[in-house]
Amino acid sequence: MNHFGRLFQISIYGESHGNSVGVILDGVKPGIPLSSADFTADLLRRKSGGKGTTPRIETDEIIIESGVFNGYTTGAPILLRFLNQNTKSKDYSNLVSHPRPSHADYTAKLKYNGFNDYRGGGHFSARLTLGLVSAGVVAKKMLKNVKFSTKLINLGGCEDPKEFNTILDAAIKANDSVGGIVSLKASNVEAGLGEPYFDSLESTISHLLFSVGGVKGVEFGIGFKGANLTGSSYNDLIIDKDGHTSTNNNGGINGGISNGNDIEIKVFVKPTPSIAISQNTFNFNDNKVEPLVITGRHDSAIILRAMVVLESCLAIALCDAMLIKNAYKGD
Amino acid sequence: MNHFGRLFQISIYGESHGNSVGVILDGVKPGIPLSSADFTADLLRRKSGGKGTTPRIETDEIIIESGVFNGYTTGAPILLRFLNQNTKSKDYSNLVSHPRPSHADYTAKLKYNGFNDYRGGGHFSARLTLGLVSAGVVAKKMLKNVKFSTKLINLGGCEDPKEFNTILDAAIKANDSVGGIVSLKASNVEAGLGEPYFDSLESTISHLLFSVGGVKGVEFGIGFKGANLTGSSYNDLIIDKDGHTSTNNNGGINGGISNGNDIEIKVFVKPTPSIAISQNTFNFNDNKVEPLVITGRHDSAIILRAMVVLESCLAIALCDAMLIKNAYKGD
Amino acid sequence: MNHFGRLFQISIYGESHGNSVGVILDGVKPGIPLSSADFTADLLRRKSGGKGTTPRIETDEIIIESGVFNGYTTGAPILLRFLNQNTKSKDYSNLVSHPRPSHADYTAKLKYNGFNDYRGGGHFSARLTLGLVSAGVVAKKMLKNVKFSTKLINLGGCEDPKEFNTILDAAIKANDSVGGIVSLKASNVEAGLGEPYFDSLESTISHLLFSVGGVKGVEFGIGFKGANLTGSSYNDLIIDKDGHTSTNNNGGINGGISNGNDIEIKVFVKPTPSIAISQNTFNFNDNKVEPLVITGRHDSAIILRAMVVLESCLAIALCDAMLIKNAYKGD
Amino acid sequence: MNHFGRLFQISIYGESHGNSVGVILDGVKPGIPLSSADFTADLLRRKSGGKGTTPRIETDEIIIESGVFNGYTTGAPILLRFLNQNTKSKDYSNLVSHPRPSHADYTAKLKYNGFNDYRGGGHFSARLTLGLVSAGVVAKKMLKNVKFSTKLINLGGCEDPKEFNTILDAAIKANDSVGGIVSLKASNVEAGLGEPYFDSLESTISHLLFSVGGVKGVEFGIGFKGANLTGSSYNDLIIDKDGHTSTNNNGGINGGISNGNDIEIKVFVKPTPSIAISQNTFNFNDNKVEPLVITGRHDSAIILRAMVVLESCLAIALCDAMLIKNAYKGD
Repeated sequence: MNHFGRLFQISIYGESHGNSVGVILDGVKPGIPLSSADFTADLLRRKSGGKGTTPRIETDEIIIESGVFNGYTTGAPILLRFLNQNTKSKDYSNLVSHPRPSHADYTAKLKYNGFNDYRGGGHFSARLTLGLVSAGVVAKKMLKNVKFSTKLINLGGCEDPKEFNTILDAAIKANDSVGGIVSLKASNVEAGLGEPYFDSLESTISHLLFSVGGVKGVEFGIGFKGANLTGSSYNDLIIDKDGHTSTNNNGGINGGISNGNDIEIKVFVKPTPSIAISQNTFNFNDNKVEPLVITGRHDSAIILRAMVVLESCLAIALCDAMLIKNAYKGD
Repeated sequence: MNHFGRLFQISIYGESHGNSVGVILDGVKPGIPLSSADFTADLLRRKSGGKGTTPRIETDEIIIESGVFNGYTTGAPILLRFLNQNTKSKDYSNLVSHPRPSHADYTAKLKYNGFNDYRGGGHFSARLTLGLVSAGVVAKKMLKNVKFSTKLINLGGCEDPKEFNTILDAAIKANDSVGGIVSLKASNVEAGLGEPYFDSLESTISHLLFSVGGVKGVEFGIGFKGANLTGSSYNDLIIDKDGHTSTNNNGGINGGISNGNDIEIKVFVKPTPSIAISQNTFNFNDNKVEPLVITGRHDSAIILRAMVVLESCLAIALCDAMLIKNAYKGD
Repeated sequence: MNHFGRLFQISIYGESHGNSVGVILDGVKPGIPLSSADFTADLLRRKSGGKGTTPRIETDEIIIESGVFNGYTTGAPILLRFLNQNTKSKDYSNLVSHPRPSHADYTAKLKYNGFNDYRGGGHFSARLTLGLVSAGVVAKKMLKNVKFSTKLINLGGCEDPKEFNTILDAAIKANDSVGGIVSLKASNVEAGLGEPYFDSLESTISHLLFSVGGVKGVEFGIGFKGANLTGSSYNDLIIDKDGHTSTNNNGGINGGISNGNDIEIKVFVKPTPSIAISQNTFNFNDNKVEPLVITGRHDSAIILRAMVVLESCLAIALCDAMLIKNAYKGD
Repeated sequence: MNHFGRLFQISIYGESHGNSVGVILDGVKPGIPLSSADFTADLLRRKSGGKGTTPRIETDEIIIESGVFNGYTTGAPILLRFLNQNTKSKDYSNLVSHPRPSHADYTAKLKYNGFNDYRGGGHFSARLTLGLVSAGVVAKKMLKNVKFSTKLINLGGCEDPKEFNTILDAAIKANDSVGGIVSLKASNVEAGLGEPYFDSLESTISHLLFSVGGVKGVEFGIGFKGANLTGSSYNDLIIDKDGHTSTNNNGGINGGISNGNDIEIKVFVKPTPSIAISQNTFNFNDNKVEPLVITGRHDSAIILRAMVVLESCLAIALCDAMLIKNAYKGD
């Protein structure tokens, strides 16, 4: 369902071509200064218009519909909305019978018996991530001292940032798309966040990350490469009374609980499925495989815009875990 | 918290050296034949005693404490218990001041203000996975036709199964440990399982997988290697009216929803942190780094026993998603 | 928190004098015809303007912001909004220091450290029930054959409907207010809805009813008067193979589960706390008891408008229970 | 489902004639001294054997199966079990075809397709309340200064405690049963507990109270009698800077949030449905109404044993609300 969180709760709604998309945040601490300007920076990081992103430009002006009064959060639910304005009236109905491969077109139709709003991906559109980014902004405010550092470390298989521009140009020229890997880091995270079974910090963070369209892999610390290590080389030795470790192969989490070191995560985002190259895939009307050419406006590398979304997911999960920890503080 | 699931719910409890460990299952359909014999096969797959596993042997006899009557599930909660019998009375308290690196010793102490049961890992012991395996057995019964295929595809960095024995021998001889990668596959999974935000099938499956101690990476389909592909090579083309695809890079899930192809997942399990090699790590009593030698009984490759646990997590998540889908069937 | 439901989920938001109030509905079955006209009748029952209700008139036009496409529900979350238009710009801040007795003014201030939006009751305003009524409309559509019958059976202590008008006139003339008792009945409710511990049908229904401002008592069937009966006179004897009973003292629920007879409930709604009569109550600015005269627009008998709200709560709880039951149907 | 609570979570299990009944408590603060002796007093209040209670005597010895170490709670889940020992091997199967009126026999059979354990009421037995009482004991420890005062204020329609013995004797002699009304009071409850929509303190308290078998009415403060009052007489005037009120018609809760005055509740418990008097009710085997004579051991006034159970429900709800409030304390 479209709801997440034990204390810091988010409920997401909207479709690509409906009135608006957005999110209700509940469990926000009262007394936090909050205005639309607070969202500008992160929303800009998600914005389209740059190379490799869709030419559909939206103003993405946030409307704070409730839960803020005199410039401060009230403790009541905060509804944040974004109007859909630059929607093209083209006919998307061909995608119902001739679904885009690797996309939600086919599964959404099955799940919702054909009643889903298919225009621009409908409820499955990347536009829904506006709500996540907004929720992340508020979560970061509640987390106070936590610092986030998010980097693109792999684009289209290449790990050299200097080559990323070339990779992107090639994909655009080929009417193709690329994916890659994002590195997330959160510093100054208090130790003791997370629960054993079943809300380990890895569990709640990955739950949110995997809700973002296109995410197909999540690893903590050294991740899968750790298969090459033995226990004696993998183990992070504690070096001081604050629990700092010599290495951070575990990504700052042991037994599902933060250990005070940086939370380090890598996330694989698949290549954007919507590409302009013709693809031979099944047409359910004609009952045979036929070439599909997708004509809409799309991102060649959605990963560029996904970075801040993934960072927001991390912030949301940490904020919820922090509130749960707070509940048990004091006498 | 120690509870998971929307309709198929599990609540886990227990410590390594307490009376017992186990699980309450709620939301089980009434009328399913169930006896202790049904659990034997999967419990055996998790059992210790083989090469690379701890010499702590437990009978692991399941006690069906409630929820089954005349050989059938009743629809009421099923409490499944496993007595802890072969517990050694050795003193574990040194691990409180001199915590094992990469283990929950340190974080559990912080989180629970030193009141956690530290004997044998306490609530963080791998013994808790008995409850998960048991829950998985019941979930599989509810899933009926779904077939699971679980394989060890990487041990200690090696991907050749013929070499796994050698890898294991070397680790044992070196008093060290190894991790690796498990491949999970579920076939005959009905299309339409999973929700968009925030309970994508990837989200709920990974939530459970990451609750298992030692899991540090989860990827679907081709996973991180997909960063090397462009959209045109990554996309899974649909080849027939049943939605079968030519490749399965997405691991059977699009837009968070199963597409009827096999669910394919890879899970990285880190090397067992408890090793007999001396490790230089902080002693909080002496306030300095000192050699730590762990003398208990441990697994050299906990991954061997984790395979069925991970498979169970997958079954539990699929079962919950199936029930949710059922709720919307019919007129 | 402002969220309820296991499968049919509602998330409420808004304040009396903010932009809007409303609700997100999740877990709605796709394919249900839905337009703003469907809400008209129930919204009208909640509307103000009649005798005994506030002169604040709002158009209460519903805005279906998402989740409906081509006239049918899509299965995605439905955001329903109502603009706040007829808000008076008067100064409410005196109520912060001189809170209205029996109202949320004082507790909201404490809970939210003074950051709550106090204008017109803020998030605690009866205006929030627009979301409940709207959710109830959708729930009733999903329940199909269930019929609701809602009656005012006690106004200001009087049980004779012919006298209600006189009671109301007297309260208005006295600048005072009255409460009363509402009788709810749902017919054609399928047997087998509800769970033993802890989601008995009484539990979930009362949970929702008591979330409505002013509700201070809920009883099922004969209710508190049943204290006068012995078991032999209280027990509802079954009279036919469909489980019909000779009496309905249990209100259609046994062991927390619907038995196929009518669900019958009585709900006590307290007199509207906001009255124009001067009241001697503590002024926190002056640190002493002082007369408080409330000058805003208020209902003399909010119960008149609450009836459809309570009926909606019943519908929501039944709808959620029905979906849960559906999940276990079939093989 | 058999699970409740946002932070202080309880999961109940068991049947009257199974191995055991009990509860898992999760979200218990670590470091609370806890031993079986702590449960003695409240378990004794629930115990049978006195006049008007069933002659089935159980030792009700509590088994602390997990979550307590060296005499203190660890923060891990606490499984509390009670063995079923004094179970009679009589045949209960006639109740399946000839269900007891006003009892769960009929609804349980429908809900669980006849697979429910019907012996002694199975999962619907009052024996399950052992888990609630135990959870209440732990909740009270976490609530520290809160004092509970629970009284029987109506037995069989009589409000004079001096006559209760006579009422009881008459019921026993007549092979009949009686119900009544319990008054619950919690003092020293911190102001600010509870949430607006949908977890008002009334909502969560009533949710738990109505999960107890036989509870058919819940009212706060003056309750239904408040219908006789006007707003000016109902309203609780604030008399000092601590928020104390001159009256407590609202039962200590405004806007769903505790106001610092006593929480006051009245609960109607219906007459025990199982009576030895012959009752003419439908026999589904013979397809006609026939006399039913119930021969088991039963309570003539289950309300006597229910008092501590209801008090426990109140404690559990307050404890959960307190933890949620704690989460938002501090900077």
